[in-house]
Amino acid sequence: MKRILLILIVISTSIGYSQTDAEVLRTIYTQSLTNGKSYDWLNHLSNQIGSRLSGSLGAERAVAYTKEELEALGLDKVWLQPVMVPKWVRGAKEFAFIETEPGKTTNVNICALGGSVATPALGLKAQVVEVHNFQELEALGTAGVQGKIVFYNRPMQADLIQTFDAYGGCVNQRYQGAVEAIKYGAVGVIVRSMNLRMDDLPHTGSMTYNNVPVDKRIPSAAISTNDAELLSTMLKLDKSIQFYFKQNCKQLKDVQSHNVIGEITGSEFPDEYIIVGGHLDSWDLGDGSHDDGAGVVQSMDVLRLLKASGIKPKRSIRVVLFMNEENGLRGGNKYAEVAKQKNENHIFALESDAGGFTPRGFSFDCSDAAFSQVLSWQQLFKPYLIHYFEKGGSGADVGPLKTESIVLAGLRPDSQRYFDHHHASNDTFDAINKRELELGAATMTSLVYLFDKYGVNPISNSSLIKN
Amino acid sequence: MKRILLILIVISTSIGYSQTDAEVLRTIYTQSLTNGKSYDWLNHLSNQIGSRLSGSLGAERAVAYTKEELEALGLDKVWLQPVMVPKWVRGAKEFAFIETEPGKTTNVNICALGGSVATPALGLKAQVVEVHNFQELEALGTAGVQGKIVFYNRPMQADLIQTFDAYGGCVNQRYQGAVEAIKYGAVGVIVRSMNLRMDDLPHTGSMTYNNVPVDKRIPSAAISTNDAELLSTMLKLDKSIQFYFKQNCKQLKDVQSHNVIGEITGSEFPDEYIIVGGHLDSWDLGDGSHDDGAGVVQSMDVLRLLKASGIKPKRSIRVVLFMNEENGLRGGNKYAEVAKQKNENHIFALESDAGGFTPRGFSFDCSDAAFSQVLSWQQLFKPYLIHYFEKGGSGADVGPLKTESIVLAGLRPDSQRYFDHHHASNDTFDAINKRELELGAATMTSLVYLFDKYGVNPISNSSLIKN
Repeated sequence: MKRILLILIVISTSIGYSQTDAEVLRTIYTQSLTNGKSYDWLNHLSNQIGSRLSGSLGAERAVAYTKEELEALGLDKVWLQPVMVPKWVRGAKEFAFIETEPGKTTNVNICALGGSVATPALGLKAQVVEVHNFQELEALGTAGVQGKIVFYNRPMQADLIQTFDAYGGCVNQRYQGAVEAIKYGAVGVIVRSMNLRMDDLPHTGSMTYNNVPVDKRIPSAAISTNDAELLSTMLKLDKSIQFYFKQNCKQLKDVQSHNVIGEITGSEFPDEYIIVGGHLDSWDLGDGSHDDGAGVVQSMDVLRLLKASGIKPKRSIRVVLFMNEENGLRGGNKYAEVAKQKNENHIFALESDAGGFTPRGFSFDCSDAAFSQVLSWQQLFKPYLIHYFEKGGSGADVGPLKTESIVLAGLRPDSQRYFDHHHASNDTFDAINKRELELGAATMTSLVYLFDKYGVNPISNSSLIKN
Repeated sequence: MKRILLILIVISTSIGYSQTDAEVLRTIYTQSLTNGKSYDWLNHLSNQIGSRLSGSLGAERAVAYTKEELEALGLDKVWLQPVMVPKWVRGAKEFAFIETEPGKTTNVNICALGGSVATPALGLKAQVVEVHNFQELEALGTAGVQGKIVFYNRPMQADLIQTFDAYGGCVNQRYQGAVEAIKYGAVGVIVRSMNLRMDDLPHTGSMTYNNVPVDKRIPSAAISTNDAELLSTMLKLDKSIQFYFKQNCKQLKDVQSHNVIGEITGSEFPDEYIIVGGHLDSWDLGDGSHDDGAGVVQSMDVLRLLKASGIKPKRSIRVVLFMNEENGLRGGNKYAEVAKQKNENHIFALESDAGGFTPRGFSFDCSDAAFSQVLSWQQLFKPYLIHYFEKGGSGADVGPLKTESIVLAGLRPDSQRYFDHHHASNDTFDAINKRELELGAATMTSLVYLFDKYGVNPISNSSLIKN
């Protein structure tokens, strides 16, 4: 009991810290909202460079541009980390229609899924069988599926408040749909776009063939939500209608690309690393402003905002712009692999890969003790309307860094509009609001500042702040 | 002490209420997100009817349309409440330019402020004096202002997190700018648009002449933020540049219009009234989707969602669609006046007039006791990411109902994008996200449900929920 009392006395003399922290956060937010760089950087990335699929010219230009911009910030180190990435190309724009009788066709909007094989050069035409999950597919079996196109049409669940939950509930159709359909002799796959809105835009995204031999692979495409409804309605009227689609996408050989890394070396604990990042690659239909140009420029701005706010980090802070999150995660894996080789002690990794919308908070993948530490900081964020501090996932690119002691976190912006744009041709700069983007950068910087100052040391630090 | 203990025992047997409430809220949100009517109604209001300035044909069509739609809901009563409203018309599109030397002009984007007089038929040309507040104007005095156009150029403060605070810090330039400028002999007023974004759209809004005689009134217009910057820069280079503008807006005689009211009569306490509302009128440049078509359709949907969720209110619930919030507040005043005449006991009034964006919570104008009651419900809203429960303002239209005992509240949506659209030609339906609008309607319905169930009876009720 005496020891506990002693600790309480120490705590009560340390109350001042909290006030300083509040002032630092205010400085960070003001800097970001009045003097932020995120929006200008994203304008360049989106409008001058454009889409950045791994292995594309856009991706390589983005590597060069962000490296140059980081160098201009006067960081302690900026470097490129080589990583081999897959190179998939879409080729000519896809074409598709529903045919009710020979020559009577209705065009529909599709796009090839990332990683899909092409159709035969003249396209593929077959009857369609609609299913909503793999159980329905299994029930149909080879008798019902052989020689047909499988149409996965399970919509995202509208009554889930967090749209990422609705995405999680649907995305196996897209990722795993071909593998399952191949088991029963399907000749192609059409997937309802992962979009909560009814519109005409198909949404791409990665799919897998697992270990299905190359000659058994079937072409897979996404169809817009409006056209998914149309196809479903037409199938109800007549099961014998035909679906035609043509795509000439192709998987090429792996090519070399890079993660882009910048570092402010810590003044007291240079061997403890905090990283903040987003992914530099994007799908090819839009310009990847929300996914994940936003996360890239916010992460870059974290280091700039620390400097602009007069904060000299005690620990080493790195920005990592990961290559190939969308169709391989090679960059995230490479970064973790090198960190392990070098025995670098990463204590905190924060990812922004959920869009550039108004930040609501963070999701944490960490120990309960570390989570209590984070909760003790929650009140500091209240003036900025940041309220969401929950345990959960972090992000794909920081995931490979997972250890027992590290804190992994993901920025959680408002998610209501995210899937209107995700992987579609309207993921473009005009959908970005400057203030929302800047609030996200400030929110990330604030959390990095706190972890830099206090480290991951839950018992003593959470007490310091709580009082 | 014994009495307190007894109360605690009663409380502990009443825990079940909270679970029921959680289930009811879940039903309300699911209904709104899967079966909401707000978005369809707003589509009609915005795209079939359009702008609805008081006294305009659009306003009258909106009265007829919303009355018809409320009637179709099978409410207990639907009626129109007559109210005389001002009628101001914009006339021909305004025209303005900056003249650096005779014949050398640069066009700029302006719009007349609501209530302004016209310029002379051939327009008005004069030198410009730029100020940022009334103190600067006073310092210039008649010597500096006489015969000139006063250009108010104080920007909205970007580092304020809540954009309504930034608006509050600037709007006196627009509302009071002419009255102040007239004191020093100005011939016209140009005001920087109340917009946090740099763009080319002028934002209108109401202004006053107070009791300045008609022949002393000077024309007042808003200029886009981009052109405000341009004008300011050009003035720095040459103070003698001239500004020309032409507008032929006009204040006509008052005309009769209506508030639209619908009611579900309470089953137990029909003489206790809860109202929920927004304003049916809008400015004329856009279609008023965010300001305040969103509040109108959300309020209508509150009554529909209560019915759809199987809730039979104990108290009388009214939706009130107020006329003339923008340039007179005649509807809000009329409703309160009639309520007072009839001695109607209003216990709770909720307004939605801050845009149709993702709801963050509510601002409450009420006693501390009533506010504790509200805070005891806060946890119920956490699954819906509703976290903002603060004391503060409510809304202009419910304001006149203020008494010591009533709870006034305003829905508080995310405000970052609101002033990009407010009173400008881009306040249009395409800026509305269906889910965000529906989440707002569900959030309002949930609070109405709780006030209907528990009444405003802070001590007993807050205890019931807290446990």
